[in-house]
Amino acid sequence: MNVDGTPFRSIWLNEDGWSVGIIDQTKLPHVFELTDLKTLEDAARAIEVMQVRGAPLIGATAAYGICLAMREDASDDALDAACARLARTRPTAINLNWAIDEMLGTLRNRPRDERLEAAYARAAEICDEDVETNRMIGVHGHDIIKTHADAKDGGRVNVLTHCNAGWLATVDWGTALSPIFQAHEASIDVHVWVDETRPRNQGAALTAWELNHHGVPHTIIVDNAGGHLMQHGEVDLCITGTDRTAANGDVANKIGTYLKALAAHDNGVPFYVALPSSTIDWTITDGVRDIPIEQRDATEVTRMNGRLADGTVVEVDIASPGSPAGNYAFDVTPARLVNGLITEKGVAEASSEGLLKLFPERASD
Amino acid sequence: MNVDGTPFRSIWLNEDGWSVGIIDQTKLPHVFELTDLKTLEDAARAIEVMQVRGAPLIGATAAYGICLAMREDASDDALDAACARLARTRPTAINLNWAIDEMLGTLRNRPRDERLEAAYARAAEICDEDVETNRMIGVHGHDIIKTHADAKDGGRVNVLTHCNAGWLATVDWGTALSPIFQAHEASIDVHVWVDETRPRNQGAALTAWELNHHGVPHTIIVDNAGGHLMQHGEVDLCITGTDRTAANGDVANKIGTYLKALAAHDNGVPFYVALPSSTIDWTITDGVRDIPIEQRDATEVTRMNGRLADGTVVEVDIASPGSPAGNYAFDVTPARLVNGLITEKGVAEASSEGLLKLFPERASD
Repeated sequence: MNVDGTPFRSIWLNEDGWSVGIIDQTKLPHVFELTDLKTLEDAARAIEVMQVRGAPLIGATAAYGICLAMREDASDDALDAACARLARTRPTAINLNWAIDEMLGTLRNRPRDERLEAAYARAAEICDEDVETNRMIGVHGHDIIKTHADAKDGGRVNVLTHCNAGWLATVDWGTALSPIFQAHEASIDVHVWVDETRPRNQGAALTAWELNHHGVPHTIIVDNAGGHLMQHGEVDLCITGTDRTAANGDVANKIGTYLKALAAHDNGVPFYVALPSSTIDWTITDGVRDIPIEQRDATEVTRMNGRLADGTVVEVDIASPGSPAGNYAFDVTPARLVNGLITEKGVAEASSEGLLKLFPERASD
Repeated sequence: MNVDGTPFRSIWLNEDGWSVGIIDQTKLPHVFELTDLKTLEDAARAIEVMQVRGAPLIGATAAYGICLAMREDASDDALDAACARLARTRPTAINLNWAIDEMLGTLRNRPRDERLEAAYARAAEICDEDVETNRMIGVHGHDIIKTHADAKDGGRVNVLTHCNAGWLATVDWGTALSPIFQAHEASIDVHVWVDETRPRNQGAALTAWELNHHGVPHTIIVDNAGGHLMQHGEVDLCITGTDRTAANGDVANKIGTYLKALAAHDNGVPFYVALPSSTIDWTITDGVRDIPIEQRDATEVTRMNGRLADGTVVEVDIASPGSPAGNYAFDVTPARLVNGLITEKGVAEASSEGLLKLFPERASD
């Protein structure tokens, strides 16, 4: 999407034809800084320190990491070592292993002197496929937003979102934000309530940054505010992303998503979840019971980073010293609270039946 | 309650018999600092800059402010000027006007040379009455916690609370925290999930500080986490305070309270609200519709204060620069989501009938 009028993806091949450009997301929202990946180790480190984050972007970065490794040494040993190094970067990102397997499948049985070119070609494809998947999520989600705009006679449509499921988390478009970008492109008057999304503040830091620099009207709110807004008719629909969707339509997403789904349900506000179908875990039939919830370091709750008046970025302690803190990273929203799953194939009802109707090839699993 | 073993109220008469001691709450949780009020202006300023906050404590501070004014000049003019000065400090605190009226009623028709003594006597009474009201809220709330402890065979009772309705907001005991302090005193194994309560973080800053220094087990969580905890049986009951309760049992409280009440309802977790009966607004019969919601400055959302590693307290910008923010201070939880209103007179059902049963003298209003 655009950054102040200039189109960007979150990862790209530089003009030299081999090095890889990324946005250093650890610096956002305070500074917009590009950086180059020139070695396997650069790519691995970028994933580890979260210069890149978001499952699809992590996968794309790993793919290019293997390209950079092949540039130095296209041997089987080097390929295996590269895959092993990248696999260690983040323990749980599903797309990471998927991308590594894709690259391995492409390169393994190929002569060494063809590997470099094949690697770059497959990495580019992985990126383009992600962009196309997200674009299609946006096409289907756009229709939902348009229905609301039409019902309001072209009046402003207020969409609430939680966390960051924008283009920065993917290669482009994003998942939950793709329908919003497309509605905005189609001149629908769309305004986004951006949950700040404590503890890591991806809403106020990344979603607001994306929307602001692309020019989409939005307002940051604390995570506590959405219920009040829905009670008073200020939200037309909610769209969030998801980290894992169970086969029954239960949806794991950033902690706090469940609370917004409850408020939407209580106020008759439609609640949608946008996802590439690769996010569906067909092996889990009860998401609330069976999706494991990561607990992260308490300092994410008790510390915060921010800018001083002179622009310096510092970390401060915000909580009462000596008090313990708990940090649950995700929660699971039961399918009964979800009005629809927006995928690249269309919008599914959040249920086993709804998902199988859209993905009949899974019926035999 | 105790601060590291030493009993404190939030306001007290110093040993000199005339000056007034307070805890400078603007410094919490970073520094525990006492300060003295020696003039009317000191008291007014303490309310304005929120060295003291919480409706009951504001009232008590205003009462002592009039004492300090009478010390310098006990004339009618000085009394009127003192009341006018104090009434200007905070626009909406109900107890402020109540306390000023009480002091006026006590002093107006009294000879000048008796006013000083009478003022100090009435201010002390106002404080003691507040302490007794909150103690009784705690007595009734303790019984509820004890029922849960008994049902768990003395196992740990997990209480979730939102914002700060502790002793720092009152003269002592607090409202929502009074039952918790009393359960803890009675050796019930009680543990508190402390919502940090964005944007002003009164949970992580004040509630956690109170509980930590009194020695009550607790864990700070982000406001997003409560739904997940309730879904997984980690919360036995919720207790919050309220800024205004409508005659039908609807409850206005810090933004986000409604979301926790929804989650409690969805998971069969009892949700209680603790309040002195002075908080009931008998003129409002539909809280969701009619209680006005204050909108505050956006910088409360986009900035945060905290401690640097060297202990310096600074303010930092935490959000994407240039993005607007909305700041709704309260929300209203419908009575249907509230299991009981814990007052100094006992526990009422959250409904017109329930409240009138406990306060039959209001039936004719």
